[in-house]
Amino acid sequence: MAASLLACGINPETSILFQQSQVSEHAELSWILGCLTSMPRLRHLPQWKMKSKQKNEGSVGLYTYPVLQAADILLYKSTHVPVGEDQVQHLELAQDLARIFNNTYGDFFPEPRALLSSTRKVKSLRDPSSKMSKSDPQKMATVNLTDSPDDIVLKIRRSVTDFTSEVTFDPEVRPGVSNLVLIHAAVAGCTVEEAVGWAKGLNTGKYKQLVADAVVQRLTPIREEIERLRGDRGHLERLLAHGAQRARELAAPVLKEVHHRVGFC
Amino acid sequence: MAASLLACGINPETSILFQQSQVSEHAELSWILGCLTSMPRLRHLPQWKMKSKQKNEGSVGLYTYPVLQAADILLYKSTHVPVGEDQVQHLELAQDLARIFNNTYGDFFPEPRALLSSTRKVKSLRDPSSKMSKSDPQKMATVNLTDSPDDIVLKIRRSVTDFTSEVTFDPEVRPGVSNLVLIHAAVAGCTVEEAVGWAKGLNTGKYKQLVADAVVQRLTPIREEIERLRGDRGHLERLLAHGAQRARELAAPVLKEVHHRVGFC
Repeated sequence: MAASLLACGINPETSILFQQSQVSEHAELSWILGCLTSMPRLRHLPQWKMKSKQKNEGSVGLYTYPVLQAADILLYKSTHVPVGEDQVQHLELAQDLARIFNNTYGDFFPEPRALLSSTRKVKSLRDPSSKMSKSDPQKMATVNLTDSPDDIVLKIRRSVTDFTSEVTFDPEVRPGVSNLVLIHAAVAGCTVEEAVGWAKGLNTGKYKQLVADAVVQRLTPIREEIERLRGDRGHLERLLAHGAQRARELAAPVLKEVHHRVGFC
Repeated sequence: MAASLLACGINPETSILFQQSQVSEHAELSWILGCLTSMPRLRHLPQWKMKSKQKNEGSVGLYTYPVLQAADILLYKSTHVPVGEDQVQHLELAQDLARIFNNTYGDFFPEPRALLSSTRKVKSLRDPSSKMSKSDPQKMATVNLTDSPDDIVLKIRRSVTDFTSEVTFDPEVRPGVSNLVLIHAAVAGCTVEEAVGWAKGLNTGKYKQLVADAVVQRLTPIREEIERLRGDRGHLERLLAHGAQRARELAAPVLKEVHHRVGFC
């Protein structure tokens, strides 16, 4: 289940939704923060190590992407950032850059803190040793928020488990079935122990049906809301234009102060 | 003699003078071009190799600076760029990025060409194997446009030459005195042969006086104009504000089209 603002329960009436590319301050602050970042600091980040191998060294944009993420965070003087476990090290870069900036140019940025959800990492349905990812080329590995109920049932039925029929939670020894338990607990809003309790007496095949039903039940209203919103392009465009305007109003004075402190004006 | 717009004969009435940091489109285009640049492409540029050694690896900003330079050039769809010899490889990066962008998103950027002046590279007065540079920590190595006539005379009198008293032009064998001949030719607006001709019968000590006088004569009106302009801060601020406004008017539609082509809007 790829992360989604809607799924996170963010309300577009009170939250600011905008396209990053429409707010120039992100790229501008990113440039300045890059001047405070050492080359090895980025080289050791796990996502660069992984993705640059897949893509033959990768581009400068991929390498410096964590600096842009830090700019995305610091530009709004954010204090808390909801992240998955895989993003913790990128958030640490943002913390380091806030500290380096504050030490060099005087206290300005709060050090942003991670908000980790209880479901820290959802794993791939095809390979429970790696994370579930929107960019996974194996379509069966990932449940999308827009998947039809039939697709969700199929993906979970085909998910990789093991040859033990009983349902237990043991991520080290039984990563596949434990991933299903985690997903179940996440969508049903219960603990891992409760999910295992509900699975009592079921083999993994039957349990997959139970998990699939719970996922469908959780995602159906989200999918329907996405479909409804997609049908009203004018509303979405107004929402984004208004969001970009509000984001610029927040970002501009922060960047102006950064410019002033580093000596640009 | 560090490069200067004034020394290049650029007229602020017809040219656009502005601070890059006041035109956000530079950082924005730089981000996009970074996504088209491979990591090894930057690692092999000579200035990175040299400066990163001096500064313990250097920062991400130093590493990606040539991409920002490419953005500075391409943002105005520049066709010709006046550069020193040491910047030719950076201009080649801008040419490559124009080509890569055009191949990927359709013809858009002209491939900018270098305009090399006849004086391609002025060398340090203290070490004629390296270039004269504004950032050289040895103050005696560099003639600044704002140096007083006394300072210029002193710097050139103390410049490193060799133990042969006659003046000849042979950059390989006699880099110090040949650098003075080049400087002489550049400020007097004559050829190297003419400069050597004027030096006939002079030892290097006397020749240094001749060169110093020529440099002082060439730079005095420039220095006086700089002093006059510096005395009118209000005028400079209006000039830069007006320049930034005009630069933005040129840059905004180019970036807008880039956004459109890469799919940002």
